[in-house]
Amino acid sequence: MGVYREGKYTLKFTNLPVLAGTYTVAGPIEGQGPLGRYFDLVYEDSLLGENTWEKAEVRMLHEAVDGVLKGRNLRASDIDYLIGGDLLNQITASSFAARDLDIPFLGLYSACATFSEALIVSAMMVASGASNRVVAGVSSHHDTAERQFRFPTEFANQRPMTATWTVTGSGACLIEKEEEANKNLPRLSSATLGRVVDAGIKDAYDMGSAMAPAAADTIKRHLEDTRQVPEAYDLIITGDLSRVGKPLVEDLLSQEGIEVMRVLNDCGIIIYDPKQDVHAGGSGAACSALVTGGYLYKELLNGNWNRILLVATGALLSPTTIQQGESIPGIAHAIAIER
Amino acid sequence: MGVYREGKYTLKFTNLPVLAGTYTVAGPIEGQGPLGRYFDLVYEDSLLGENTWEKAEVRMLHEAVDGVLKGRNLRASDIDYLIGGDLLNQITASSFAARDLDIPFLGLYSACATFSEALIVSAMMVASGASNRVVAGVSSHHDTAERQFRFPTEFANQRPMTATWTVTGSGACLIEKEEEANKNLPRLSSATLGRVVDAGIKDAYDMGSAMAPAAADTIKRHLEDTRQVPEAYDLIITGDLSRVGKPLVEDLLSQEGIEVMRVLNDCGIIIYDPKQDVHAGGSGAACSALVTGGYLYKELLNGNWNRILLVATGALLSPTTIQQGESIPGIAHAIAIER
Repeated sequence: MGVYREGKYTLKFTNLPVLAGTYTVAGPIEGQGPLGRYFDLVYEDSLLGENTWEKAEVRMLHEAVDGVLKGRNLRASDIDYLIGGDLLNQITASSFAARDLDIPFLGLYSACATFSEALIVSAMMVASGASNRVVAGVSSHHDTAERQFRFPTEFANQRPMTATWTVTGSGACLIEKEEEANKNLPRLSSATLGRVVDAGIKDAYDMGSAMAPAAADTIKRHLEDTRQVPEAYDLIITGDLSRVGKPLVEDLLSQEGIEVMRVLNDCGIIIYDPKQDVHAGGSGAACSALVTGGYLYKELLNGNWNRILLVATGALLSPTTIQQGESIPGIAHAIAIER
Repeated sequence: MGVYREGKYTLKFTNLPVLAGTYTVAGPIEGQGPLGRYFDLVYEDSLLGENTWEKAEVRMLHEAVDGVLKGRNLRASDIDYLIGGDLLNQITASSFAARDLDIPFLGLYSACATFSEALIVSAMMVASGASNRVVAGVSSHHDTAERQFRFPTEFANQRPMTATWTVTGSGACLIEKEEEANKNLPRLSSATLGRVVDAGIKDAYDMGSAMAPAAADTIKRHLEDTRQVPEAYDLIITGDLSRVGKPLVEDLLSQEGIEVMRVLNDCGIIIYDPKQDVHAGGSGAACSALVTGGYLYKELLNGNWNRILLVATGALLSPTTIQQGESIPGIAHAIAIER
């Protein structure tokens, strides 16, 4: 068997699936941020010359998939499956990109945790023998997300300091069977799918607080299932908890006797500079995809890290659930990437 | 390995995952339809006593999962993963049901093809060794879907005769490893994930025409990959092509030299009686789930059929894509169920 369970919830992959390449497409604010030089393609304008932001988002995702294939001299027809999703209603950025790419498509949704969910399903498909080569891809776009989840950008409402800024960008990852890929590339070794955890937060402008309990739950279960201490990883990196959610995770885990402060960071915190005035940090499915596919992947290749646990986090709200008085449940999916 | 590929796109499962139980929850119109007696729970009222249709949909999905577990004397904690989705923006019916069930959750979206997508991912997880026991569950609701995709029900707009009626209901399936289950139960043997196919249809009231090319594509690839004639199956059943889309699939496949007319049927056609005035037929993620989990599963157990190919079909539209002048791409995922 190519996949087995360790502990109650964690999947271990044998014949470790190889993260054989990444490609990242970033919007202008992301390109100006501290990680800008790690992104493969940076746009100066968030419309990309299209006439709607939604069409720009479809194109970004398509370009990320094209980019990761070109990097290995592959064509779309060399890929068995495209696995991914995005934040748009009915994940239309992904399904329209899949239409244009003509690859069988497995659509996923875990809000901003969709990136790690896609890596997990990809790893499972490759480790199980279902496929030799898949692409996992996700996108998000500040302007498509704002007008869908909150207010149109043109409305210029004032955002509270707990708000995060949805990352404009896309990231695609090529996941291959060991024999297909260079032996020295990073691998996907284990994964923990998250439970939906609801802390009762109802403020759609404070998703860090809504998601922190889910992140803490998944990190705890992952470490317990695999019998590891946090320092077994050089870095445990959450998706988009922001400056509000990260200290909450540290506190929640500390109450359980797990001290993560020395190894914990958050994609949403490091993708922007505080001077960029995005408030609490970045969010969106592309937040963890840009940081992982750009920064982390390249630093893994450089040997600066050996073992990373990515814990992308998602806030499972919709405008309808908010209007109906529901709280915001969170989810977090963890995947270990190692050299 | 528990999964391997046959042909270019089709997955074959070894140690065939067992479809160890189903539970279906239906709304009033579905209960009055010709398959009403096959459903496990039928509500007289589509609100279920809740104060919104969305909350009713969450409850239906929760009850379907509870029902399938109770049928085998299992508790939620006996299940490794809940795998599913629905038509609501951000698949909130599924994520809220998963919150209340407290099972690790893998969220999917393929519009009305989400049911077969969930069965495929479930089969892959069980066949690969990732899990011994998962539940796949989906839901849809006429009133939540109408107000989200088209007009609020209260608006009472006139529907053209090509329109389908979104099924109100939910279905959950228990998928287990062979050793866990009774040997005589139906199994999931192979699957073909679909490509996104766009026929250029722009009418959101004619989803049968929009999805038919995707269904034909998936059926053709499945039969080619597995080197089978259509009659290798007692029944090839599409998800919700309706009286408009089914003849189109027959024509499209006939043009390729594949004659399916003798074995083809459609869940959307058989779930309602023409006298029920739903126009072209039923649709929604619950359409194929109710027909499969209710009617087909019970008739497989009765020995009336031995091999069925379920080809659930999805229209990948959103109100935003329609308003931006995009056409409606379709997708279809096929899974073979056999005794």
